[in-house]
Amino acid sequence: MRKIIFFLTIFLCSTNVSSNLDLRKYFKVDPPPHEDVAKMARYIVHVSDWAGMATISTRQGILGSPFANIFSVSDGTKKKSTGVPYMYLTDLEMSVKDLKVDNRASITMSLAQTSFCKRHKYDPESPLCAHVVLTGNVEKVHTNSKEGRFAEKSLFTRHPEMPDWPKDHGWWFGKLNITEVCVLDYFGGAKYPTLKEYFKADPLI
Amino acid sequence: MRKIIFFLTIFLCSTNVSSNLDLRKYFKVDPPPHEDVAKMARYIVHVSDWAGMATISTRQGILGSPFANIFSVSDGTKKKSTGVPYMYLTDLEMSVKDLKVDNRASITMSLAQTSFCKRHKYDPESPLCAHVVLTGNVEKVHTNSKEGRFAEKSLFTRHPEMPDWPKDHGWWFGKLNITEVCVLDYFGGAKYPTLKEYFKADPLI
Repeated sequence: MRKIIFFLTIFLCSTNVSSNLDLRKYFKVDPPPHEDVAKMARYIVHVSDWAGMATISTRQGILGSPFANIFSVSDGTKKKSTGVPYMYLTDLEMSVKDLKVDNRASITMSLAQTSFCKRHKYDPESPLCAHVVLTGNVEKVHTNSKEGRFAEKSLFTRHPEMPDWPKDHGWWFGKLNITEVCVLDYFGGAKYPTLKEYFKADPLI
Repeated sequence: MRKIIFFLTIFLCSTNVSSNLDLRKYFKVDPPPHEDVAKMARYIVHVSDWAGMATISTRQGILGSPFANIFSVSDGTKKKSTGVPYMYLTDLEMSVKDLKVDNRASITMSLAQTSFCKRHKYDPESPLCAHVVLTGNVEKVHTNSKEGRFAEKSLFTRHPEMPDWPKDHGWWFGKLNITEVCVLDYFGGAKYPTLKEYFKADPLI
């Protein structure tokens, strides 16, 4: 009960903190040309501050089933995009329990999460309302490493509530170690930029 | 090539069609009290016009991995919410190819998809920015059945582009036959309303 009250207090205190406002500047910038598939993928990943994640469930009742869930993400700071989706995870979380048994995961982010598709009146499933699917496995990023410090900065600047989340939940920084990039933009079916093309592209240039 | 041009023409012609505008009236209505978990689930499902869907991949390279993807959904018309997520599917689609082998799936929808969380400055992963995860299996709904006609009406009124999608893609109406409802709203961990509670609740009352 004390834990719930503490969690509640922390959240209620932090809800007045300005959240994600800086991202508006990205949302005002339209996506790159659809032909630049790798850049489109990087753009969507960079402007999205949350993602739908699929794991293989370990829970009684739906054991072995695919399981979808929502996570806040960040691939970098305002000035630096890496293409690597970082997350702030706790072993108490359902999908993280799945990942402890099988760390394969897939995350999806869509321009439907920005104002772009609504503004252009594109249906969320239209290929003009592009989305990206990243598949791979989730790995821990060590807090005291250079990458750990960058993950922290990337997440905490875009999700200012995070530093106040309950300390006793054992939060850790995770990243999706991407093995496949799948992009649905424009017509002609899914496109698969190579990892080299994906990481070389930069949505901020 | 002809197919691409046709698809392109259809989409470009239909992008001026008013899409999802009617939903604004739902978005203006705040979610039900968090204690009413089943109603919260039904509310989120009803106001969401798209979802992230998890399947088990059948594709070379990521065979057996969880795979996340985006689909337009509708659980009913403006005046009737059923709680059943209907989708307009084609066998040509990646995730549908997965479903043909293993029809288990899970879909997630979040209040982060509406203006609610931004308006209240809730982080997308905050339990105050509620989300729902429905797990089950995807089944075909026969076009000429009563349910098929309702699925068509539900989807086509919320996604006015759909009737114009290419005829040669073999679209069919599918639904998630829900076996588990998982709700993340407020604090204290995930909640699991029974199917009876879920289907009994009505977000429009």
